[in-house]
Amino acid sequence: MQAKFLVIEGLEGAGKSTAVSTVINWLAEQGITDVITTREPGGTKLAEKMRAIVKDVDTEEPLTESAELMLMYAARAQLVEHVIKPALAKGQWVVGDRHDLSSIAYQGGGRGFDIGVLNTLRQVAIGDFKPDMTLLLDIDPAVGLERAKVRGELDRIELEQLSFFERIGAKYQELAAADDSIYCVDAGQNIDNVQAQIRDVLANHVDCHNRNVD
Amino acid sequence: MQAKFLVIEGLEGAGKSTAVSTVINWLAEQGITDVITTREPGGTKLAEKMRAIVKDVDTEEPLTESAELMLMYAARAQLVEHVIKPALAKGQWVVGDRHDLSSIAYQGGGRGFDIGVLNTLRQVAIGDFKPDMTLLLDIDPAVGLERAKVRGELDRIELEQLSFFERIGAKYQELAAADDSIYCVDAGQNIDNVQAQIRDVLANHVDCHNRNVD
Repeated sequence: MQAKFLVIEGLEGAGKSTAVSTVINWLAEQGITDVITTREPGGTKLAEKMRAIVKDVDTEEPLTESAELMLMYAARAQLVEHVIKPALAKGQWVVGDRHDLSSIAYQGGGRGFDIGVLNTLRQVAIGDFKPDMTLLLDIDPAVGLERAKVRGELDRIELEQLSFFERIGAKYQELAAADDSIYCVDAGQNIDNVQAQIRDVLANHVDCHNRNVD
Repeated sequence: MQAKFLVIEGLEGAGKSTAVSTVINWLAEQGITDVITTREPGGTKLAEKMRAIVKDVDTEEPLTESAELMLMYAARAQLVEHVIKPALAKGQWVVGDRHDLSSIAYQGGGRGFDIGVLNTLRQVAIGDFKPDMTLLLDIDPAVGLERAKVRGELDRIELEQLSFFERIGAKYQELAAADDSIYCVDAGQNIDNVQAQIRDVLANHVDCHNRNVD
């Protein structure tokens, strides 16, 4: 059975870190322990430098929206080429905290970049590479932001207005409706319920059959 | 008279730094002393961080060609938005060591990226903004590389093969032939001759009239 690339997506405060743990635990229960995790933007030495530029609050020199967009794809190119593809080729599963859907939702839905531009950038950066499955943690943007605030100091993107996150949430839902490799989970429920939903999606849609009958 | 953005372009070792000084001296002689210089990639705090990622030789994690491309445009977006446009708006002249033509020559000619992709990235990063004039220092790639080697340790891009620079040189010439705001200077001549050529182009094609008759 081929190793797969599973991605967790969602707004600030949707519970992505916890969901990554849930996926890793579920995989371990299926006997799959050769698993790496990634986060975007970032996940390589150079991509983490780009992440720092994107996340830092620099009031003297604001990051332009177009530079933000290009850095996201530059970081993704590094991560896919040097981490995700080599891992999958070695048979390692990959669980990603964000991937390309974030750029479509944040830079497309949130910032308003044209989908044609995003498609060009994706094609340049990673070609036709895509996750085997995406779990979208659906949360009310206001609730997510409140959770993110409790977590600690907000980064440059988390400091945006609520309307920005509302546009992103709407774009996420639109994208999920159009792609049957994206599964929505109601992340507004309590943590046990969210984990149960995630496990349910994994059990029904991730093929671990060969591994189970080893 | 409106302040102008004048750009020096050319291969490694073509003599761009000296040419920048020549332009500044000539401008001063015309009474134009409110001049800033820029270099690309770089020229702002964030763009210099991107430059470091592009220039550093990292053998553990090579920079992908697509990440290099995106970083060039991200850095350009920062520089145009936060330095070049504000300077011109204040009446300051800007003399640039490289600008967008470098990306078309290096990433297009050298790396082989499609011109349609480059046009999309430029449009996203800086829209229709362009220099008032470009001075292209035309040099034999092998001669330029020899000069660059004498200068000191080579960066990641300077370490490329000669054939890479030959493709860039050919692309530069092709671009110059198609754009009448680009003026070629034979940079293979001795320094006095090159400076004389540059001064000649400036005298014939940079309008300082209003300033001269002040």
